Amino acid sequence: MKFNKDTNILIIGLGVIGGGYATALTKQGYTVNCITKSQSTVDYAIEHGMVSKATTNLDEDLIRQANLIIFAVYPNVFIKWIKDNQHLFSPGTLITDVTGVKGSVVDEVQSILRSDVEFISAHPMAGRESSGVEYSDPEVFKGANYIVTPTAKNTKEGIEACKKLGEVLGFAKISELSAEEHDKMIAFLSQLTHCIAVTLMTCNEAPNLEKYTGDSFRDLTRIAKINDKMWSELFLLNKPALLEQMNVFINEFSRFKDLIEKGDEEEMRATMRKATARRSLFDKPKA
Amino acid sequence: MKFNKDTNILIIGLGVIGGGYATALTKQGYTVNCITKSQSTVDYAIEHGMVSKATTNLDEDLIRQANLIIFAVYPNVFIKWIKDNQHLFSPGTLITDVTGVKGSVVDEVQSILRSDVEFISAHPMAGRESSGVEYSDPEVFKGANYIVTPTAKNTKEGIEACKKLGEVLGFAKISELSAEEHDKMIAFLSQLTHCIAVTLMTCNEAPNLEKYTGDSFRDLTRIAKINDKMWSELFLLNKPALLEQMNVFINEFSRFKDLIEKGDEEEMRATMRKATARRSLFDKPKA
Repeated sequence: MKFNKDTNILIIGLGVIGGGYATALTKQGYTVNCITKSQSTVDYAIEHGMVSKATTNLDEDLIRQANLIIFAVYPNVFIKWIKDNQHLFSPGTLITDVTGVKGSVVDEVQSILRSDVEFISAHPMAGRESSGVEYSDPEVFKGANYIVTPTAKNTKEGIEACKKLGEVLGFAKISELSAEEHDKMIAFLSQLTHCIAVTLMTCNEAPNLEKYTGDSFRDLTRIAKINDKMWSELFLLNKPALLEQMNVFINEFSRFKDLIEKGDEEEMRATMRKATARRSLFDKPKA
Repeated sequence: MKFNKDTNILIIGLGVIGGGYATALTKQGYTVNCITKSQSTVDYAIEHGMVSKATTNLDEDLIRQANLIIFAVYPNVFIKWIKDNQHLFSPGTLITDVTGVKGSVVDEVQSILRSDVEFISAHPMAGRESSGVEYSDPEVFKGANYIVTPTAKNTKEGIEACKKLGEVLGFAKISELSAEEHDKMIAFLSQLTHCIAVTLMTCNEAPNLEKYTGDSFRDLTRIAKINDKMWSELFLLNKPALLEQMNVFINEFSRFKDLIEKGDEEEMRATMRKATARRSLFDKPKA
């Protein structure tokens, strides 16, 4: 499948990410339909001109017409949907997703999928701490990373189409990783940080702390407003990589604690200088 | 001392906080002078109209004229300055500071200070990850907290003048805490978060991570760009309270890790819902 202006796009799941995709693609003149869970989302999407057609039903026509189907649902919902409904795809359909872990999703979907359709997995590294279509906004894709995780089962054409989708959505950097590299990276950059933010919010319940907080604490806990269902699923699907990164963090945190305990100012300062230097690599590129 | 338009203000140390104070106070018509370490800071402050007079010398006239002296220097520099130079203060001068830890500073300064001047300690809970006068900006005080930590040695008038200063600087919320309450609170809200940010930057040195980062990781590590000299001093001055909060964090983080390891989705989700609910308390009030 080549991705071009005639591509008929179906989005399954119109939440904060699916909604952003729909708005971005519709604005650029693509035909975008959607199947989603709740009628209020359907109403919102139609009212805001985000999609051509939207329904809560398993609309066989919409599925059959689609050349590109984007799953923007929880990983377990995605896998079950494929099992239950893949007989409805037209031959040659390209399937992609937005799932935050890959190892336990890509292999399973590719192994159960019909051989006349292709699944190419991608992870848009952008989100919001609130869920639901009304919080969707394609602006969050600008300046953000979009990672494609192809396997030996993918075609060159499928990979290209998936990358083209990332470009059209406005992502700043499109890259390729293996599912394993992706999951290791995401365990550190995203899952570990969510575990830390949640812990900061639950480890100290002293009253009135909010009256004295500064921006540092606010920044470190912004993502502690978390979709508990989705993230517990993501954590468990990536358990070995996440546990490894949590241990790596605990070890270094304990080392730094020991330095403070010993009053080893020299080594504390060396660690902080290293952190300062390394952090500058992670500055957001100017849009 | 009453704080009013005729108050002659001397700022010792024109860095990112002292500079913000100077700009805010000068803009509102106060007479602000400064003594600071480097000539380039003096030149910058004069050129940008931040102060009336600025010098790198221990200018006895500026000190004698001052009714209110604000120390915006490192804690150890502050204490040494008082020891060496307090004979230059005029009787009745009010001294305040911006120091991020209180227990080890307030008692010591008040115990060595001449009895005809008063020291009332305050902590402006606003800062920037870069240091130096050129990064100073009084806008960071808006919406932020300003905490006064009086002791039995302070007068009602001195406390009032210090709170008035916070108001004039534009802080959104002025409150009082004991030095001990302050240090316990700051160990959690500020020092622990800086230790976490530094650890995130030093625990995993895999190459290319910056290519794939999203905003969560950027948010959690913004403060890893850290002034190593100042923060190591602050950590060590507040060692017992900080070590306690680091242990509290490690315990809860390990509990959450165990839940993931056991696959206890129910308790993971309960923890995340608690984090989400508690985080909403910490949203920044609208300016």
